[in-house]
Amino acid sequence: MCKMKSLNKKQQRSEKTKGTIIDAAKKLFFAHGFSDVSTEQIAKESGISKGGIFHHFSSKEELGLSVLRSTLDDFKHLLPIIEESEDLRAVMRMVISETMSFGRENPGFIKMLIWFLLRIDEEADNKKFYFMMKEAFLESLLPYHQILESLFVRLEQTHPREKALLLMGLLDGIIIYTTYVDKLSKFEPELADYFDDFDNLADLVMELFFPKKE
Amino acid sequence: MCKMKSLNKKQQRSEKTKGTIIDAAKKLFFAHGFSDVSTEQIAKESGISKGGIFHHFSSKEELGLSVLRSTLDDFKHLLPIIEESEDLRAVMRMVISETMSFGRENPGFIKMLIWFLLRIDEEADNKKFYFMMKEAFLESLLPYHQILESLFVRLEQTHPREKALLLMGLLDGIIIYTTYVDKLSKFEPELADYFDDFDNLADLVMELFFPKKE
Repeated sequence: MCKMKSLNKKQQRSEKTKGTIIDAAKKLFFAHGFSDVSTEQIAKESGISKGGIFHHFSSKEELGLSVLRSTLDDFKHLLPIIEESEDLRAVMRMVISETMSFGRENPGFIKMLIWFLLRIDEEADNKKFYFMMKEAFLESLLPYHQILESLFVRLEQTHPREKALLLMGLLDGIIIYTTYVDKLSKFEPELADYFDDFDNLADLVMELFFPKKE
Repeated sequence: MCKMKSLNKKQQRSEKTKGTIIDAAKKLFFAHGFSDVSTEQIAKESGISKGGIFHHFSSKEELGLSVLRSTLDDFKHLLPIIEESEDLRAVMRMVISETMSFGRENPGFIKMLIWFLLRIDEEADNKKFYFMMKEAFLESLLPYHQILESLFVRLEQTHPREKALLLMGLLDGIIIYTTYVDKLSKFEPELADYFDDFDNLADLVMELFFPKKE
């Protein structure tokens, strides 16, 4: 008994340390990009030694995927809100605008996602990397898709699964644009105009996907 | 006069050689990915020496951007069709399904686009690279956006510019998914189901963006 209790306490401590490392890494990765941040910097930011970091994560890549996963997990807080809410259109509007502004405020996030996507080919023979990708993407992105699908079902839309996929695609596409729009609009100031009014864009997405029944 | 004529012939020959190099590079880049193809391989495929390639393109990156640009330019063949067509809904349906199947058939294309997007940060101080990006992206993607916008205008939709942007985002997002879905669905066979019926997806996009007036 006593041994088990102490093991649990040890596990709890370990989870807390992992959380501290993930938070510090997230802050740095999102601000400076995955490739430009060293484990030395993460050690300094988190107050946990490099050895401590590699005790909890086998590689920088594994830590990066844990950061992505923890970020995508945050969207799960929407699930109980959706279950309890009676104004589903309002919830949907919130999901859309939260996703869009998250992308704008965290350009480092989508860059990390893209960096890992490109790695899929480079690490084609690395089964461990594949497994980590599965963990990070599928177990986090599929639930996000399910959130959207359940909203389409409850809003009595036809083809809820496919529409959820199309909406996810649209939001991902727009997030990629916003990530690079500041840079590209240096050459083409007109480009920035498109993203001037995010609220307007979110309203239009609502109008397209959830037209009011007249 | 005679000198000018010979210069024009020289220019024509030069353009033809550039085209041959671009076609060979496109075939290899799309099949194996930008990073995995060497200029030696492009020389072999095109029948033009490495020296000849670097005479026409200052770097592999410049050649890569020319490949992207030439690919996006292909969409411009739609412009006269749109101008002349009377069944705009049918044209729109064609643009949507052509874009989706292009993405599925050319996974190398979107990977190259992504590779160059990531380079924007790495080459932040490289003005020449920035200028090439402007050439390749803005002068090719903005016309694509304009094609969509003009269709929305002619189909009498409100907010044509913003809707064109959202539709582009959606198509880009879906193309990214299709590029990686084969790999990710090794772990999650369910994922492949989403992309089983591309025709159905294109119909749904039409339904969302161009609802029939009742």
